[in-house]
Amino acid sequence: MPWAARRSHLGRRGLAIGIDIGGTKVAAGVVDAEGRVLAEARRSTPGADPRAVEQTIVELVDELSAEHRVASVGIGAAGWMDLDGGTVLFSPHLAWRNEPLRASLQKLLRRPVLLTNDADAAAWAEWRFGAGQGESRLVCVTLGTGIGGAMVMDGRVERGRYGVAGEFGHQIIFPGGHRCECGNRGCWEQYASGNALGREARQLVRTNSPEGRALLEKAGGTAENLTGAAVTALALEGDATSRELLADQGEWLGLGLANLAAALDPGMFVIGGGLCDAGELLAGPARESFAKNLTGRGFRPMAGIALAALGPRAGMIGAADLSRVSGRAHS
Amino acid sequence: MPWAARRSHLGRRGLAIGIDIGGTKVAAGVVDAEGRVLAEARRSTPGADPRAVEQTIVELVDELSAEHRVASVGIGAAGWMDLDGGTVLFSPHLAWRNEPLRASLQKLLRRPVLLTNDADAAAWAEWRFGAGQGESRLVCVTLGTGIGGAMVMDGRVERGRYGVAGEFGHQIIFPGGHRCECGNRGCWEQYASGNALGREARQLVRTNSPEGRALLEKAGGTAENLTGAAVTALALEGDATSRELLADQGEWLGLGLANLAAALDPGMFVIGGGLCDAGELLAGPARESFAKNLTGRGFRPMAGIALAALGPRAGMIGAADLSRVSGRAHS
Repeated sequence: MPWAARRSHLGRRGLAIGIDIGGTKVAAGVVDAEGRVLAEARRSTPGADPRAVEQTIVELVDELSAEHRVASVGIGAAGWMDLDGGTVLFSPHLAWRNEPLRASLQKLLRRPVLLTNDADAAAWAEWRFGAGQGESRLVCVTLGTGIGGAMVMDGRVERGRYGVAGEFGHQIIFPGGHRCECGNRGCWEQYASGNALGREARQLVRTNSPEGRALLEKAGGTAENLTGAAVTALALEGDATSRELLADQGEWLGLGLANLAAALDPGMFVIGGGLCDAGELLAGPARESFAKNLTGRGFRPMAGIALAALGPRAGMIGAADLSRVSGRAHS
Repeated sequence: MPWAARRSHLGRRGLAIGIDIGGTKVAAGVVDAEGRVLAEARRSTPGADPRAVEQTIVELVDELSAEHRVASVGIGAAGWMDLDGGTVLFSPHLAWRNEPLRASLQKLLRRPVLLTNDADAAAWAEWRFGAGQGESRLVCVTLGTGIGGAMVMDGRVERGRYGVAGEFGHQIIFPGGHRCECGNRGCWEQYASGNALGREARQLVRTNSPEGRALLEKAGGTAENLTGAAVTALALEGDATSRELLADQGEWLGLGLANLAAALDPGMFVIGGGLCDAGELLAGPARESFAKNLTGRGFRPMAGIALAALGPRAGMIGAADLSRVSGRAHS
């Protein structure tokens, strides 16, 4: 093969499709070896039926691979995959239980397929191309409806003995506290997440306190419509009460990060997810609380707390990249 | 060198001295490559003065190496060592601050010296020779006056970015709760440790409740004399109140282990330290609480909870073994 053709061949081999399956939409992208997204497509998540989700994945890959030569497909979803990346053990938003998704998708897609937890995928992307580059002990925390978590250690996603490590959002930090979707009470994600922010705002509004007036207005007069995203938007517009609610979330965020630092001693935390749209309104109080709650402060180097760099595409980029490098880096 | 002499030489090379520096005593032992303790010696901890502690170490090594040919010395102490194993960053019970202890000890002892955290040393011993053998994701928790913690992952002690990982006892599980020596409130070790057990017993006795009579008697009529060890002894004799107090500790132990499992997903926990003299009176309630508080229970394999096998010599054995293998396994 002449040299130019070989280079071009290698270039094509470098493309992978990353697919991020969320509760409401499935987003897919063609990602190159430098983490750039060359093309994108998306669909609504077709309910929880595994066959319908498979069909959606096939359609997205067909659409994207018409224009790009793609060597592998990485799929990220909330939930637990086995260590081998072949089977979905459990996914909260999808009706997958012990689903050998990879085997059936590899047949349909005629390419190597890797399944990965969405938080692991996002962390990998931030370590490879984003805010966590070069860090030997990276902990990522994604603040969305709940908290997703993942660790990249010595250049590998650390997934634990059975592949379900990184569920930081379910550390109990307030025994007997708010009920969590996982069935426990007092989980961290009930105190620092988009859902927690929305809940606090709704409770405030329902007291009829004058503090809640701007929030109630933003919600069109109905407390039930108030979401974490609306509170964040109001805070960015300058509303003092919304900023206080965000600062509360930041305080709990910092306390949970201090717990993780006690156990894991990372060099850096990268914080991503929708709640981070608040930027320093969240990160500032989080850093203060982290510094106040970190055990051994003053006798140890302190991990940095950085905001994620890749935004909502991190999961897609990471899933694509992991499907490419899985043989050597994702064990 | 004739073959027989070489074999004997290699045999001697396999011996190392492990030294465990505690708050009250310094224990040293000659340990062979199978983790057996061939000889022991001990001294009282000579106050907090670094020079006096060094002198004690030299005396112990001189005494033990008179009878055994020893190739290296491993020293375990509560506190934080740098990643290189050369400098004590901080030790709560000793006045070492940024002390380059290894360099000065290597000169005095004329042998390679490794400094290690005592919990890391004990975990390593349990992984090599004790209850955690063969486990690829091992988490060890040592319940003494506080909680020591360590992880062995893929056959290496995981020490974090700066060498201070594993401080599980300082995860905050009850914000605003009991004051901790670390300056925070609500740390796990204030709810599951020998000190916590003693504090709870003293508080109970001070209420003058009839429930506390056996405890008060055990303490010779003075609540202040009551220790965790005394409560454990009474519980083993059958005292119902002491058993309840131990079960409370076990419940908090299980909750904290569930938090660690959410984050780390280990294959096994090994629980050691003085509080484990209570055996199943502690481990039983801990297992129940772990099963009740583990997020995702029912959808994941559950880590086992085993009692440590090596007893109070684990730190000594682990420090010796780490000094022998440090080049290849302790990074």
